[in-house]
Amino acid sequence: MAISNIRYGEGVTKEIGMDLQNLGARRVCLMTDKNLSQLPPVNAVLNSLAKYGINFQMYDNVRVEPTDQSFLDAIKFAKKGEFDAYVAVGGGSVIDTCKAANLYASSPTSDFLDYVNAPIGKGKPVTVPLKPLIAVPTTAGTGSETTGVAIFDFKQLKVKTGIASRAIKPTLGIIDPLHTLSMPERIVANSGFDVLCHALESYTALPYNMRSPCPSNPINRPAYQGSNPISDVWALHALRIVAKYLKRAIRNPEDREARANMHLASAFAGIGFGNAGVHLCHGMSYPISGLVKTYKPKDYNVDHSLVPHGLSVVLTSPAVFTFTAQIHPERHLEAAEILGADIRTARIKDAGFILADTLRKFLFDLNVDDGLAAIGYSKADIPALVKGTLPQERVTKLSPRPQTEEDLSALFEASMKLY
Amino acid sequence: MAISNIRYGEGVTKEIGMDLQNLGARRVCLMTDKNLSQLPPVNAVLNSLAKYGINFQMYDNVRVEPTDQSFLDAIKFAKKGEFDAYVAVGGGSVIDTCKAANLYASSPTSDFLDYVNAPIGKGKPVTVPLKPLIAVPTTAGTGSETTGVAIFDFKQLKVKTGIASRAIKPTLGIIDPLHTLSMPERIVANSGFDVLCHALESYTALPYNMRSPCPSNPINRPAYQGSNPISDVWALHALRIVAKYLKRAIRNPEDREARANMHLASAFAGIGFGNAGVHLCHGMSYPISGLVKTYKPKDYNVDHSLVPHGLSVVLTSPAVFTFTAQIHPERHLEAAEILGADIRTARIKDAGFILADTLRKFLFDLNVDDGLAAIGYSKADIPALVKGTLPQERVTKLSPRPQTEEDLSALFEASMKLY
Repeated sequence: MAISNIRYGEGVTKEIGMDLQNLGARRVCLMTDKNLSQLPPVNAVLNSLAKYGINFQMYDNVRVEPTDQSFLDAIKFAKKGEFDAYVAVGGGSVIDTCKAANLYASSPTSDFLDYVNAPIGKGKPVTVPLKPLIAVPTTAGTGSETTGVAIFDFKQLKVKTGIASRAIKPTLGIIDPLHTLSMPERIVANSGFDVLCHALESYTALPYNMRSPCPSNPINRPAYQGSNPISDVWALHALRIVAKYLKRAIRNPEDREARANMHLASAFAGIGFGNAGVHLCHGMSYPISGLVKTYKPKDYNVDHSLVPHGLSVVLTSPAVFTFTAQIHPERHLEAAEILGADIRTARIKDAGFILADTLRKFLFDLNVDDGLAAIGYSKADIPALVKGTLPQERVTKLSPRPQTEEDLSALFEASMKLY
Repeated sequence: MAISNIRYGEGVTKEIGMDLQNLGARRVCLMTDKNLSQLPPVNAVLNSLAKYGINFQMYDNVRVEPTDQSFLDAIKFAKKGEFDAYVAVGGGSVIDTCKAANLYASSPTSDFLDYVNAPIGKGKPVTVPLKPLIAVPTTAGTGSETTGVAIFDFKQLKVKTGIASRAIKPTLGIIDPLHTLSMPERIVANSGFDVLCHALESYTALPYNMRSPCPSNPINRPAYQGSNPISDVWALHALRIVAKYLKRAIRNPEDREARANMHLASAFAGIGFGNAGVHLCHGMSYPISGLVKTYKPKDYNVDHSLVPHGLSVVLTSPAVFTFTAQIHPERHLEAAEILGADIRTARIKDAGFILADTLRKFLFDLNVDDGLAAIGYSKADIPALVKGTLPQERVTKLSPRPQTEEDLSALFEASMKLY
């Protein structure tokens, strides 16, 4: 497995101008979003670019929860700019958009669908060389700085999908916990839930040696390989940090220790799931986000309705892990224990219920909306949610337990109300 | 931090011909040693090269515990062969020799000392592009498949030193636990002690943010960065595996679970120390190996006297950790607990003694020679051992506690007898 380069430390962002000099960059594309463009993380980057005389153009039009249209807009900017390096400052939306911009600007004759995951796109392997991309995450959630995945909302199908290739993995991730101090409470919470699910899903994913098809040539193997002894280390370590620090990070913006640890946990879980993959919480989350009606979450300063990614992922987690525990109950029980459950008298066959119950308590304590119903869905929406999950084979096939349409339908139904 | 690519699984060696095809390799240099050239790991590689029609030349003249002369011989072979890819099949000696061969064949006008660590060599940064190198480790110890370090015995100074650069890190490490089944008992033990010390030293190394000098430009920072939150994960995980499996792997060659886990632990500890660094056990081990008199270890089929690397490292470990515990006693106590000590009533100020005592018991149980005296050293050798340690600044500076010549002298003296 390949792992990204990351650099960690308070204030390390100020070195980015030197990194770009070392790369010999002469025309840099700096990507961010409108909110962040006014905030300290972007300022820190701008100061360093100025100090080291780096020539750049800024694109601050990234859409939070990007779409094919917003990707195409960023790609157009990148093609026109003829950049020789990219810097992404933001959460997963910014980093993912920047990956796509770098990819298509480096492969200018490709059709947009060429690299989009099959069966929605053609899922072609990336063979063109890309420009260096330095990612500076400002949330503690996606781990996008360590992965070769870029997710977007494909509007005409009303479904999230993405591009997955080792080729789009950032050259360097700069993990500077100072940036997490700008995050409002719900962004800390929702991005933290994404870390939680990355860790839980990659730890419970289908083992690497049971995945099929298993192409004989290593070059044809997917980025998501199934759970393995290396991703397990990252998943468990990230889960332990979530258990210890997520609540503290949400409740107290001044708790630098907690926020710094969650920032690292995001990268750790990213390295884990970037190799092992995720499964049903993520697969089912894409239609939950894609079909959003009028939900507008607290603390997100945007003009469109959206279900934040971490929230769309975590709301189905109690149902999903009840369902998957049948396959690796001992791993589910271990995860429950890490998250605080007392398992001394637990029966292994109850592992799924115990983990689900632990998750429900965790979410209740953190004021999470009470299930899919609370964000605007009803039973009538279930067929559409199921239909939107079916094309997410890239991840749903990594579920340890295969699932029918009826199973998916039951999982959505069980997620309507959590408490 | 950068981490190598590794692939893990029983039998994955058979894919190496495809990997070389994917790399477009037309002239491959296969390096190994005389013993291994007759054993299953090399056979597995040869079969795969034949199956995929890979053109190669074999160099099987690698010296176990290599010297500057043996490096130069391999370099000469590499220069003459004009290879476009390298495959190293063996323990640290083979992989390190292959790294050096690749480096100097890629930089043919360089003087040998140019890249050797200062102050012994010039320690120049590597700026030439190297050819791909695939490492297939056959011991469970060095973790060389994951690091940018190549160690050799510099004969005229009677001291071990090396080359350290991210540029010489293998492109891919193939961790195939089948190969560990060929290892005789003492090779399992000694290479396992190397893993043990990699984990203990990198976990207790000077923290990354206390190291000096700290070059402002990231490109000038050393490969060994000091202990950090990422290397800590690997060090602790490797230590837990050593605690659980090393004795089993040594005692029972048929215990595939134990041998496979130690094979992975070697790579894990390598990723950890390859970023954090090691300190006094390693720094002091180089003269212990370099000044060897007549010691010939069991199970090593060689015609020269040698102190196996893992043995030279572990013999000073009780003394070293007693000395360093003054700085991070809680980490030393944690390590002792992982290795089996009952620390419920332990006092933090006794952490060093407790870890040392745990290590002594561990080594006694595994029939390790009773200290430096048992491998041929006496008090009269201490000045020479100290003198051989002084140039090892690359690692000794990473000790959490600075040390004078008197301190080193006392550490060697305390290591003369263990039990």
